[in-house]
Amino acid sequence: MKSIQVGLLGIGTVGSGVFNVLKRNQPEIMRRAGRGIEITMVADLDTARAQAIVGTGVKVVDDARAIIANPDIDIVVELIGGYGIAKQLVMEAIAAGKHVVTANKALLAVHGTEIFAAASSKGVMVAFEAAVAGGIPIIKALREGLTANSIQWIAGIINGTTNFILSEMRDKGLDFEVVLKEAQRLGYAEADPTFDIEGVDAAHKATIMSAIAFGIPVQFDKAYIEGITKLGAQDIRYAEQLGYRIKLLGITKRTAKGIELRVHPSLVPAKRLIANVEGAMNAVMVQGDAVGTTLYYGKGAGSEPTASAVIADLVDITRLHTADPLQRVPHLAFQPDAMSDLPVLPMSEIVTSYYLRLRVADEAGVLAKVTGLLAGAGISIDAVLQREADEVGGEGSTQTDVIILTHDCVEAKMDAAIAEMQALPTVLAPITRIRKEELA
Amino acid sequence: MKSIQVGLLGIGTVGSGVFNVLKRNQPEIMRRAGRGIEITMVADLDTARAQAIVGTGVKVVDDARAIIANPDIDIVVELIGGYGIAKQLVMEAIAAGKHVVTANKALLAVHGTEIFAAASSKGVMVAFEAAVAGGIPIIKALREGLTANSIQWIAGIINGTTNFILSEMRDKGLDFEVVLKEAQRLGYAEADPTFDIEGVDAAHKATIMSAIAFGIPVQFDKAYIEGITKLGAQDIRYAEQLGYRIKLLGITKRTAKGIELRVHPSLVPAKRLIANVEGAMNAVMVQGDAVGTTLYYGKGAGSEPTASAVIADLVDITRLHTADPLQRVPHLAFQPDAMSDLPVLPMSEIVTSYYLRLRVADEAGVLAKVTGLLAGAGISIDAVLQREADEVGGEGSTQTDVIILTHDCVEAKMDAAIAEMQALPTVLAPITRIRKEELA
Repeated sequence: MKSIQVGLLGIGTVGSGVFNVLKRNQPEIMRRAGRGIEITMVADLDTARAQAIVGTGVKVVDDARAIIANPDIDIVVELIGGYGIAKQLVMEAIAAGKHVVTANKALLAVHGTEIFAAASSKGVMVAFEAAVAGGIPIIKALREGLTANSIQWIAGIINGTTNFILSEMRDKGLDFEVVLKEAQRLGYAEADPTFDIEGVDAAHKATIMSAIAFGIPVQFDKAYIEGITKLGAQDIRYAEQLGYRIKLLGITKRTAKGIELRVHPSLVPAKRLIANVEGAMNAVMVQGDAVGTTLYYGKGAGSEPTASAVIADLVDITRLHTADPLQRVPHLAFQPDAMSDLPVLPMSEIVTSYYLRLRVADEAGVLAKVTGLLAGAGISIDAVLQREADEVGGEGSTQTDVIILTHDCVEAKMDAAIAEMQALPTVLAPITRIRKEELA
Repeated sequence: MKSIQVGLLGIGTVGSGVFNVLKRNQPEIMRRAGRGIEITMVADLDTARAQAIVGTGVKVVDDARAIIANPDIDIVVELIGGYGIAKQLVMEAIAAGKHVVTANKALLAVHGTEIFAAASSKGVMVAFEAAVAGGIPIIKALREGLTANSIQWIAGIINGTTNFILSEMRDKGLDFEVVLKEAQRLGYAEADPTFDIEGVDAAHKATIMSAIAFGIPVQFDKAYIEGITKLGAQDIRYAEQLGYRIKLLGITKRTAKGIELRVHPSLVPAKRLIANVEGAMNAVMVQGDAVGTTLYYGKGAGSEPTASAVIADLVDITRLHTADPLQRVPHLAFQPDAMSDLPVLPMSEIVTSYYLRLRVADEAGVLAKVTGLLAGAGISIDAVLQREADEVGGEGSTQTDVIILTHDCVEAKMDAAIAEMQALPTVLAPITRIRKEELA
């Protein structure tokens, strides 16, 4: 049988991984897929470099549209990234009747609804296993492996850069800025690391998972996003003393009122498996009503791990490209005419527990005042850690840290309580608030 | 569209889970699958109990063949277990043109080749996600999620009973027999726990994974199987002191000479995620050449977790029952005409590292003698732990434990070295040998 012909748009880190793995494992992949899968065209602005990677057997062009226009190409793999030209090319490829594989989480989190609708009406597939958690087959697990379940929540370490930074901060007791520089030197963080460290990348991925888990449209604009740039080394240390680790989690949860969709640093009990995911590794916890807790762990980025996901999509499409739409898995797990209109909740309506750190004057009655305010607001306290006073200032005045862990409450209530506490004259610095997830 | 009609053979723990989850989540499952999936017949010897579980809307019979003979039934779910009547019924269901879903690992590990061949020639699917690691979608990950990879090895905690026992032995410092009784009382171990504690159940699952990972036929009779009944509390303690945990692992590995397929207690570095999988939980590590290490964690048994896997198979079959065979995933991941004839290696040819515990007379020169023998055999030592002597016997003679960790060597060489050491007059008891897996 004729090989499936694939055109790559962009051959950088991931693209060359796809080319190399497909070439190296071609016999084994063919034994699985039942036919060959071959990259026959590559488009890249740097044609010389591209040709050097793929050798003479593959046609290299500088115009992506030459691939889309080629009637011999069955599948277009978009590895350009971003919302701009990548979106145009994906839409054109769909319009030309090509199946599309993409690793572009930003594109799908923002424009997924439009893209999937176009693909459905044209009868082609858009596959995106590589868009979330790299080589971990989490999209397949959510869309196919857990179809029996009413999924309750997902919590994932889905950005390797920030997990590397947090692991290093904890291991070595260093500050964020120092570790970021080290991460950049080692290639774990980009020259402009904003998307990673501000949580935007994780929010793209959480948005895609929320849609698949709950059958809602992708709604990146509704996601709450908070990065790790303001995390202090002392909070990591205090969390440790209380039996927790701090991780940047992408969380999405179904409640009676709507869907929570949020990315922020979170205290996680140190004994949870996910708390022990170190370095640039990724892990996603999924809670289903039938299966209970499951966890998926692996490399969330890198050339060949991401290529592993892209090629799995190529094999799936190879199997199903002649099938009718009912035989295929819906793009967002649910049939397009059976989506839910559960709203994504504003952050003020989410419910979680909290870690608070207050820099206070070391005077009698401060702790009573603070805990009294929380009690008055109906927020119950799980644990308090008061540090020994350390001397600050010239006149012998002393300050200390008070750390409070609370039980669950709605975020609006906590916002109000923090404002009240902040107004106390004995609270000497902005209060640090980190959310806490038990993940039980 | 008409619902897919399902007949259950056997409605015990798993069967009632399938019935209950399918009923509870029917609207959500239908939104995913595009049509309803309904249990319309149940066969069980105890018809009264069965009828009480399913209510009046479902036809209950005591003869499984009434389900197989019913032309309205699309899928037969076999939950009887064992090789006997279960095999006959599965073969009859296939012959009658029914798709089959089964959780029966024993059946597939032993008779899979015959069953899959019959299914292929009849054009029906036999799905078995529930046969390995309960609710964890590991079969789907291996067959579909990791198709890009040349899989190098799999190592899994795939028996919850033994992992519960080992966790308790370590936590509480108790002996095997004591914990086994507790596990039986709590329902984690059966009245006759032989299949679990002797490693047979894990070997069934490892056999199925080896076939899917490497494209070889199921060969349960070639698996090496060693259970946990001979593990001493002191070995768990010594392992801990050396930075390891002892887990019962199902391991299958590809080498140039053939496939390793083995189940035995293994020392695993305590810092590995899988070493921290506690209680009755399961976890499977998969090493692929492109993706690197991935891990899948969840409940490996129980009513609803197992039902989660059975229903995922029902959804897959619902999607693909009208598809042609090339559009379906092959039973053992590889096309039936593209299987490998790589042999399963005898245990003497596997390569691993070892933990040895020798009970020796506390005399000068014993350690030199033992390590000299290992050096002479070409086995290099990684670490030695010698305990302080403890008094035994009436004449003031003392004994002590010597623990040795070795680097990798072929098992035959270690067998010979152990025989030589055992013959030393200063070695006072049978040598304990536990294999050690770095899983790096």
